[in-house]
Amino acid sequence: MAGRPRNPQLDGDILDAARHLIRTAGSAGCTIGTVASYAGVPRSTVYSRWPSRHALIDAAIAPLFTNPVPDTGDERADLRSWLDADDALISGPFGIAAATLLATSREPDGPMLADLATAIQQRRRDVGRRFGGQDEGAQVKIRAVYDAMWGRCVTTGPDHGDGPRASSMPEELMRLILDA
Amino acid sequence: MAGRPRNPQLDGDILDAARHLIRTAGSAGCTIGTVASYAGVPRSTVYSRWPSRHALIDAAIAPLFTNPVPDTGDERADLRSWLDADDALISGPFGIAAATLLATSREPDGPMLADLATAIQQRRRDVGRRFGGQDEGAQVKIRAVYDAMWGRCVTTGPDHGDGPRASSMPEELMRLILDA
Repeated sequence: MAGRPRNPQLDGDILDAARHLIRTAGSAGCTIGTVASYAGVPRSTVYSRWPSRHALIDAAIAPLFTNPVPDTGDERADLRSWLDADDALISGPFGIAAATLLATSREPDGPMLADLATAIQQRRRDVGRRFGGQDEGAQVKIRAVYDAMWGRCVTTGPDHGDGPRASSMPEELMRLILDA
Repeated sequence: MAGRPRNPQLDGDILDAARHLIRTAGSAGCTIGTVASYAGVPRSTVYSRWPSRHALIDAAIAPLFTNPVPDTGDERADLRSWLDADDALISGPFGIAAATLLATSREPDGPMLADLATAIQQRRRDVGRRFGGQDEGAQVKIRAVYDAMWGRCVTTGPDHGDGPRASSMPEELMRLILDA
């Protein structure tokens, strides 16, 4: 924040602009310049808050991956809601941007991520505990399902000759968890 | 190839140089310029064969993901060999470079991949058939395990606060497949 007094409204407007650009133009289309232009602020206003486009994308998308896991008392319905919601998020533009940023961060000299990697690790642990309870084997399965959603995000897709995919993934995963 | 007569030895030397740079400096460290320099050829020699660094990385790493799945007659031993080998590959520098390239290719206006996406889709189908046989449920599980390896490649790692990971992954996955 470079010692600058926070203006939460302005911060929010900049992050909204970043999310709009990621959704419509991908993470490559989300730069300090395009975000400043879309938010109608000088580039220096963005730079004073986030020192790089990686930091800006990190801050813009990490909160999307921390939405609460449902708890209605109906375990199976909650699991289905979570699978549907997280699979839609992970296989959509924000998931693809997140996968690009996460993979890039693991390369030598890749950018350090302040929020996204932690948010996704936390999510992985939370869903394991929420749906696996005290059963360590069930936790392993739930975490593997969560990992598989991310894996499909990078390995599968219409552009990889696999046809439409969103329709079949949660069903396959439900079977993996529930029929085992 | 721009109509140029092929020189397989030279092609191989350039791809070896690309793999060396990916292994030591990550995909960001593998550019037309660094590869030309390391291979001791003019940049134009590299450009005449692969028009971009994405195309070069694609050609260099795709073959690594097509090594044969073992078939010794011992199903469980073969499965363990495959899990260990593919998990080591996917969680290592070539897997991380592949995940970065694959995720980037799924972004709007991302690079088209000639080889890598196809190789990984093919691998996914092959291991499903090899270890799942005619049992569609088993194929689903095997494919989910393969997806989970890729998911862990992007979501988990020492730099994501999760500690060393290579040791526990195949064991977790073996349990997922064999104990279900």
